[in-house]
Parts: sequence; C-alpha cells; structure tokens
Amino acid sequence: MRWLRYGLDGQVGYGILDENDTIAAVRGNPFAGYETTATRLNLSDVSIEVPVLPPTFYCVGLNYVKHISTEGLTIPKKPDVGYRANNALVAHGADVIMPADATRIHYEGELVVVIGKKVKNISVDQVNDCILGYTIGNDVSERNWQASDRTFWRAKNSDTFKPMGPWISTEADVSSMQTVVSVNGVERTRFDTADMLFGIHEFISTMSRYLTLYPGDIVWMGTDGHSPDLQPGDRVDVTLTGLGTLSNRFMTETLT
Amino acid sequence: MRWLRYGLDGQVGYGILDENDTIAAVRGNPFAGYETTATRLNLSDVSIEVPVLPPTFYCVGLNYVKHISTEGLTIPKKPDVGYRANNALVAHGADVIMPADATRIHYEGELVVVIGKKVKNISVDQVNDCILGYTIGNDVSERNWQASDRTFWRAKNSDTFKPMGPWISTEADVSSMQTVVSVNGVERTRFDTADMLFGIHEFISTMSRYLTLYPGDIVWMGTDGHSPDLQPGDRVDVTLTGLGTLSNRFMTETLT
Repeated sequence: MRWLRYGLDGQVGYGILDENDTIAAVRGNPFAGYETTATRLNLSDVSIEVPVLPPTFYCVGLNYVKHISTEGLTIPKKPDVGYRANNALVAHGADVIMPADATRIHYEGELVVVIGKKVKNISVDQVNDCILGYTIGNDVSERNWQASDRTFWRAKNSDTFKPMGPWISTEADVSSMQTVVSVNGVERTRFDTADMLFGIHEFISTMSRYLTLYPGDIVWMGTDGHSPDLQPGDRVDVTLTGLGTLSNRFMTETLT
Repeated sequence: MRWLRYGLDGQVGYGILDENDTIAAVRGNPFAGYETTATRLNLSDVSIEVPVLPPTFYCVGLNYVKHISTEGLTIPKKPDVGYRANNALVAHGADVIMPADATRIHYEGELVVVIGKKVKNISVDQVNDCILGYTIGNDVSERNWQASDRTFWRAKNSDTFKPMGPWISTEADVSSMQTVVSVNGVERTRFDTADMLFGIHEFISTMSRYLTLYPGDIVWMGTDGHSPDLQPGDRVDVTLTGLGTLSNRFMTETLT
C-alpha cells in the first residue's frame, strides 16, 4: 500500500495510491486513523506534498562504511542517532535551492523509515510493528560548511536541503533493496541498502531505550558512495527498489 | 502579556494569564490568530502544559564564556545553531526522569525565544518583530553520555530532559535579565542573561539567512555557570527576571 500526501485546491490530505496511479482520498491520516472516502483522484491532477511533517526528524548519519571512508570520517562504534530540521523538507518535484554562497553541494540518497506507533523501550523483535512504512530522502549537504561549522545547521538544514517522498510504501524488502542515484539521467551511485553498519532494528530499538518514538517521526538511515559536486540545473533522481523515485532539480538562489 | 498553554478535561488550549492568575481562554492560538472568549479559569484549576510544540527546536549551545571554559570546551567563532528534540519536552511541574543508567546529570537554565512570524533573511533590526515572546528552559544534560556519544541524542534528548515553561511572556527586558538556578531552594548558579557570546538578534538574523523560521519555532539561548551533579529527589528552579520560575523535580527511572 502507498500513502500519498497530496494538495488540491489549497487543501492538503492523505490518500491511498493504487497501481494505476488513482488516489482513494481518506478522512484522517495513516497515523491517527482514517476512513476511505468515495473520492477518487488522478495523481496527475494533484500536487505531491512532503509525505509527513515529523514531530522529530531523526537521521542516523554515518552508517555505510564506504561513504565514511571516502569522506575521511571515523566509523562509529555504536548507533548514535542525529537530527535534521523540518524547515528543510521539500517534496518530490520541488527545486532544491542552492544558496548563492554555497560552493560544494552533494546528494545523499537514503532510505527513510516512517514511525506509525508510539513506542518506548522496544526490543529489536518489536521494531517492525512500530513502522508504518518507508520513503526516500535526499540528505543534501554543503561539504565546505559541513567542515567549517560547529553544527550542521546550514550544511544540511538550509531550506530545501531535505527532499523526501514521493510517498510512503507500507511494504518494502529492505534485505534486497538497492539505492541508485542518477544525475541528469546518468547513474552515479549504486549501493545495497542492506549494507548498513547498524540496521533499522538495531537503531530504533536502541533509540527507544531513552526516547519515545511518536507516529510520524522519521528516521533517515544514512547513505553510501560519493556524490559529484552538483551544478545548477542538475536533476537528481534517487531510486530505491520497490519504493519509487524521488526527483528534484538543483537551482541557484536568486537574491532579491 | 503572558500566554499559557493549559489542560482541562482532557483538552489543551491557550489562554491569557493576568496578574491575578486568572486565565482568559481563547479560540485559536497566538501563532495562527485568536479570539478571546468569555471563559475565565483559575490557574490552580488547570494543568500547565508545554507552552508550544515547535516545528523546529533550535538550541544555540555554547554561548557563555564561563560555562564553555568550565566545561573544557572551545569558544565558537561564529553563531552556529544546534538542535534539540520534541520528545524530550515536559512542562513546568513535571518530573524529569533520570534513566537508570545515567550517572552525571546537570541542569542548564536558559532563556527561550519563541518565534511568532514566518521570516527569512532578516536583518538584526528586524528580529524583534518576528519574536512572539520568551519563556524558560532547562537543557538537562547527562555529561558522561555527552562525552562518550557521537551526538547529543540521549545526553540531551532523553525523554523529559527538556523542561520548558511555565508560559510565554510577550515582554522581557533581556538587557537586564538575570538567570538564577536553585536546587532544593538553595541558589547554585546566577548569571547575567545578557552576557551571551552571540546575542538573540545576531543569532536569529544569521539563522534566517539560510533557514525559514516558522511561528512556534523556539530558540534556546545557552547557559552559563556549572551545575552540581543532581540527585534523585532534587527540585531545580530556574528563575529569569520578569519571566517567572520553571520548577521540576528529578526522579530516578523505575524499570518495569
């Protein structure tokens, strides 16, 4: 099942997207409960919105050995989760705006876990039960700011730096999933999504020891490989097996 | 004017608290717009709730020279903002639960700025106009986890580690404000809130260059001084001149 958050006539709602790209609109939402309505819409007639605005936006950071080595970073010894910020979220199809003084912008294609239930202190065996589904994220990063600043505030959380979507798939075979990132239609990065240093179950179980997870919380699971320096006009497509493709164009900021 | 977010009969709403501790209930909220109703309530008859659940929870981190030196940290060269997480927020009067394996828990009394308007790329002169008001935060920290972990996820964001409140004051004389922190009624820390390395205007203007700030976003402004190691049963009161007192008891987690 695919959950789409869509916009139509200035309103935003959730719907269930079938294999023919028809949306069954619902009352409510997949987190607090819903009823399917009689309204059917075509995907081409609505805007695709960010699939969820999370109460807390988690991002595991360094979680693939090749990426950590290429970027000259240290391999973590345990699953210490990090954070990103909601201001940076944009939907599938939206432009990523590269600030005028940004000089080295990279993509990071990531699997995103969407939490569906309130949980605390759960075992690895209980993790699947709290997951609503999966979507795709692009953890856009300005590498020079990442090196120069004390935090990731602008390196990773500038407005539009967190494309996410296009929808939430409730089923995914994470064990055999590939992430493929293309720039202007040419494949540049491919990795096994299962090659994580710490897996989904280990991360979420560990987090839940100290943190209550809430419906709508999201956990971005990290990236592998290395991005070229992106140029204005580039289109970046992040495809995850079975989930779809998150596509965004990169444009330079126009200062007014 | 003081904005209180209160609970009554299972509902949560906003009200305006007068000098006699009477609440004028409103329809709506201070961020999206409101109308005052005819309902009057006594502060003693309601629960005090976290004054706002922010879209993004900013915390400037190191921002007072004495505290930075005492903790053996490096003085930042520029205002790079950090983040905290909504799961950790609790209201005035709620218990802070110290995880069973926590060993060195400290308070950090902080001024909190509450954003009232959506803004981007504003000058220091425009900052006051985007601020709804001010409240008090206690940036509770587990110092051993802060040293051992790659991120602040459990050191600063364990459930209940972010007491905030009791209300939002729309006026505050930040230039002559003192922060006083007491443990069990005994003053342990006092500092001039104006002794910030980077002030409110400089931080928010800098952030807004890259980040859109939204109504309800909060910015915790950092702390000075040094906390004793807190013990189960301790009550910590954080008082800021003109804003009130945020009071919370520290209790040990009961593992079930």
